[in-house]
Amino acid sequence: MTPGQALQALRDQSPLVHCMTNYVAMNIAANVALAAGASPAMVHAEEEVAEFVPMAGALTINIGTLSAPWARAMLKAAGAAKAAGKPWVLDPVAHFISPWRGRIARELLALRPTILRGNASEILALNGKSGAGRGVDSGDEVAAAEDAARALARRSGAIVAATGPTDFVTDGARAARISGGSPLMPRVTALGCSLTVLTGAFAAVAPPFEATVAALALFGEAGRRAEAEARGPGGFQPAFLDALFRIAPEELDAAGLATWS
Amino acid sequence: MTPGQALQALRDQSPLVHCMTNYVAMNIAANVALAAGASPAMVHAEEEVAEFVPMAGALTINIGTLSAPWARAMLKAAGAAKAAGKPWVLDPVAHFISPWRGRIARELLALRPTILRGNASEILALNGKSGAGRGVDSGDEVAAAEDAARALARRSGAIVAATGPTDFVTDGARAARISGGSPLMPRVTALGCSLTVLTGAFAAVAPPFEATVAALALFGEAGRRAEAEARGPGGFQPAFLDALFRIAPEELDAAGLATWS
Amino acid sequence: MTPGQALQALRDQSPLVHCMTNYVAMNIAANVALAAGASPAMVHAEEEVAEFVPMAGALTINIGTLSAPWARAMLKAAGAAKAAGKPWVLDPVAHFISPWRGRIARELLALRPTILRGNASEILALNGKSGAGRGVDSGDEVAAAEDAARALARRSGAIVAATGPTDFVTDGARAARISGGSPLMPRVTALGCSLTVLTGAFAAVAPPFEATVAALALFGEAGRRAEAEARGPGGFQPAFLDALFRIAPEELDAAGLATWS
Repeated sequence: MTPGQALQALRDQSPLVHCMTNYVAMNIAANVALAAGASPAMVHAEEEVAEFVPMAGALTINIGTLSAPWARAMLKAAGAAKAAGKPWVLDPVAHFISPWRGRIARELLALRPTILRGNASEILALNGKSGAGRGVDSGDEVAAAEDAARALARRSGAIVAATGPTDFVTDGARAARISGGSPLMPRVTALGCSLTVLTGAFAAVAPPFEATVAALALFGEAGRRAEAEARGPGGFQPAFLDALFRIAPEELDAAGLATWS
Repeated sequence: MTPGQALQALRDQSPLVHCMTNYVAMNIAANVALAAGASPAMVHAEEEVAEFVPMAGALTINIGTLSAPWARAMLKAAGAAKAAGKPWVLDPVAHFISPWRGRIARELLALRPTILRGNASEILALNGKSGAGRGVDSGDEVAAAEDAARALARRSGAIVAATGPTDFVTDGARAARISGGSPLMPRVTALGCSLTVLTGAFAAVAPPFEATVAALALFGEAGRRAEAEARGPGGFQPAFLDALFRIAPEELDAAGLATWS
Repeated sequence: MTPGQALQALRDQSPLVHCMTNYVAMNIAANVALAAGASPAMVHAEEEVAEFVPMAGALTINIGTLSAPWARAMLKAAGAAKAAGKPWVLDPVAHFISPWRGRIARELLALRPTILRGNASEILALNGKSGAGRGVDSGDEVAAAEDAARALARRSGAIVAATGPTDFVTDGARAARISGGSPLMPRVTALGCSLTVLTGAFAAVAPPFEATVAALALFGEAGRRAEAEARGPGGFQPAFLDALFRIAPEELDAAGLATWS
């Protein structure tokens, strides 16, 4: 399944995606999913997440602005996704900044996410190596995290994506690299978190590896197009959403941003 | 009172609106209210909502990203609005996705909102009929929810608005339909939630039925204008806010988007 | 240190800023900080704030959408900032709307913020005089709050900034006034809250008084530039972020928005 085919499936099915993400990302992540063609819903109460998970095509969990009640609900939702056979995506934002956050991230990882997406520092640290990450931004190159991503994929059973200027995706054996994007993207908050939500949307309509590659390719191509129009991170954001909305499946495949190895 | 007259009153009085809305909507809803001319304030702590309600011209409650502490504070705020004789608007987002959420929505409804705004699926389900709603998006046509809206208005005493491509507003006897808007609007997150906040702003300066019609007419006309300029949901959002800011009261009446029956 | 020199330092060092701000402001405040050149991180859990504070260059606390768990974490974080010798900025949003909120604001003030930023009504009320503030918007002129700002600075030891069409900054003895900005700014939500975050970013790389003046000057110049391009509050926001990103240090000094007395 090519990225273009996955995008066609996303637009045809408009999957419902259950998103548990951070307060900074909620609005832009929902707009990214809607622009691409999915139907996101943000639901986080411990009282109802387990009932909502089976209604959705996929679940995404991002621990950015974590708190104890959210952590409890996230663990419950991830368990429900496992039980219902729904794909789920984990985004272990800045899991290394405190022992408490690290413990929640490990408990979530133990619930075997279908896909794990992080920046290079997060992937390195999740594989037990201390990186140069600082706050929510990566201090490491994606290339330096490739071995860690492969090891983590083999150990966890998840598709692992380390994202940055060039993204790396692996299931432990196969790998793909995705280019595109824009140097303005790290200057717009929560685009990585939005990518996690978009990956969940694709995972509702495509196999996990192909879904991840498709999400990254669509992000990369939309970033490339928005870069051409923007004068800064302010104008970049509307141009990026418009590109996500307008890119046709065949254009995505023609862009050829993904290479496999 | 015409929509244009209500808009003039909104701009003259710039009413303070107490908003309890979801995390996805907070920023855009506040920007919608500010662009139109109101003064929104987001206050949700159980410790202070009852004291803040009487200071505001209206209260709006949206259960999108509901949690137990917010539910407690919402019930307290709605009770305070009743006690203080302030108009309040209920937006029962996706109330059918869990028994817990449904119970909170019914408890809020029992506190007799002045205005009830929802999509067709939400209005149908609130009237006891299971619709095709999925997550936060409607799966039903507004036309199919007209009878439910009338019944709900008679039963609850609220002005009921079922919104979609054409909106339907009723007090159980009178009805109005409002056109306008844009097919891009469902591709921008939380515009429905923002409409609820705007309805509250109008309810602070106009009678409930006229306030609801005015909010819908202003939304419809701003959507129509933004549609003419936007290439996608990204550019739509700033164009929409600019239109809310620029539409003159007499232009709103001249647009003639509302028809009465 | 001129505003331009402070901006150069901000871009060179890209300081990590620990932000505890309200739900309305989180996204735009992070985007403001990123556009200017800083690295914001939103962390609020009581379980980890004290560990995160020492990793960051500065802490900012804004009580806009206050709740009891956030209040506890804010007090803990402010204490940790004091202990670690990190600068921290307090934004006492609408502290006068309830006794509970007022008490939290006073407890935070007792932990001796490095910088205190508020609108004129907030500054007046914090100095014990009841102003005309209504909700989160100021009902008073900055000029009327100058004496209160001086008194508050002397009493609290903080740099105090009362912001509005013209801003006033004082340490109790020295004072500066900063012009610029745009009448559209109060029509965009959470720009004041974003200014607080930006002030924290500057405080991580410059002395507190100079940091505050630099943040206000950059905001004023970016507002002036965005005003020239925008037709309303919608288009203002991307133009404002682009300006924050594009203003060069020497341009900031040439703009000459700050006058000292």
